[in-house]
Amino acid sequence: MQRRLADFAAARGWEPYHTPKNLAVALSVEAAELVEIFQWLTPEQSAKVMEKPETAHRVADEVADVLAYLLQFCEVLGVDVLDALAAKIERNELRFPVPGEPTAHRHSSE
Amino acid sequence: MQRRLADFAAARGWEPYHTPKNLAVALSVEAAELVEIFQWLTPEQSAKVMEKPETAHRVADEVADVLAYLLQFCEVLGVDVLDALAAKIERNELRFPVPGEPTAHRHSSE
Amino acid sequence: MQRRLADFAAARGWEPYHTPKNLAVALSVEAAELVEIFQWLTPEQSAKVMEKPETAHRVADEVADVLAYLLQFCEVLGVDVLDALAAKIERNELRFPVPGEPTAHRHSSE
Amino acid sequence: MQRRLADFAAARGWEPYHTPKNLAVALSVEAAELVEIFQWLTPEQSAKVMEKPETAHRVADEVADVLAYLLQFCEVLGVDVLDALAAKIERNELRFPVPGEPTAHRHSSE
Repeated sequence: MQRRLADFAAARGWEPYHTPKNLAVALSVEAAELVEIFQWLTPEQSAKVMEKPETAHRVADEVADVLAYLLQFCEVLGVDVLDALAAKIERNELRFPVPGEPTAHRHSSE
Repeated sequence: MQRRLADFAAARGWEPYHTPKNLAVALSVEAAELVEIFQWLTPEQSAKVMEKPETAHRVADEVADVLAYLLQFCEVLGVDVLDALAAKIERNELRFPVPGEPTAHRHSSE
Repeated sequence: MQRRLADFAAARGWEPYHTPKNLAVALSVEAAELVEIFQWLTPEQSAKVMEKPETAHRVADEVADVLAYLLQFCEVLGVDVLDALAAKIERNELRFPVPGEPTAHRHSSE
Repeated sequence: MQRRLADFAAARGWEPYHTPKNLAVALSVEAAELVEIFQWLTPEQSAKVMEKPETAHRVADEVADVLAYLLQFCEVLGVDVLDALAAKIERNELRFPVPGEPTAHRHSSE
């Protein structure tokens, strides 16, 4: 998918615009468009956005935009996003131990 | 990975906080933290952020945070993020045709 | 205040960094830092953030950052922010009429 | 201006939506809309956005939206935004001293 996005941008001559800075900024703009859908909703209403086809489509669309820019950002900088996430989850498992879970065991298995 | 994140949140009792609205907002906050790394850099400097280990680590970390919240958001709303991205790429291939490419052929291959 | 911020940046040689693009991005980063204070709060909790001196200070600090970048952005582009706001309010008064209010009268007074 | 915005929202029954959290989120969404104007521009192009009437209008419009939500946010929380900014500037004058300027004198004049 990351490769397909890179080919897509290259075929259209968009590479000069796709600096890491611009892609990070574009990602944040798309994230804000996703937030916009929810901005005046109560927590309860926000849980029901997929019930209306129109809003469901808008949500899927913005989610796709966020992921597209995230993958393109990672492509231009050579970041392995799944590696980065796995490393983060492992750090967070140490940082936020589950109450009552034997942390010693978890430590030793890492 | 999406499942692992869901289990992680559930084990810590974080689910009540993880409304779609809050997760979308958290995603946008993390996207802004990624942008912050680049905010005063020229386009040229922004292409070199991975050369300094400290900045490289910070970039990977923020990228992981963005993906983590994106996946958790998709999990609570039941959105298939890869499906959404594939659908988006197909729409964009029609919306932004490559100059000189036979679009009829492209249509027929989809 | 806008002048004082411009002098502040000029005295420190920060002007080359203060392109409109960078200032708009910095503004959005500060707005996200303000949002971060609220991201996991319920609407009710969010109404009480000023009760804790530490959070109150953080809110005031982020609000100041947002306004500082907004004014600097307006300074470099020559935008009169109060004029822009007054024009916007007038447009919104027409766009969102108050139910039951005689709109004809409102029109004629503008 | 802050009062006028508050009356505007009250007259339209928007107050229940105007929690501090929602207003902070709305502010960040508007900041992203301002950023969107600049996202693919070079620093040089970004300095010329006011030359095209259409873009100039869009910039003024987004700036107004950012200020409107900032003032409404401050109104509901009772934050004096100009006080907050003045305090911030004073702290920054100490934090980022001007090279070669007699800081002792600056201190005594505050």
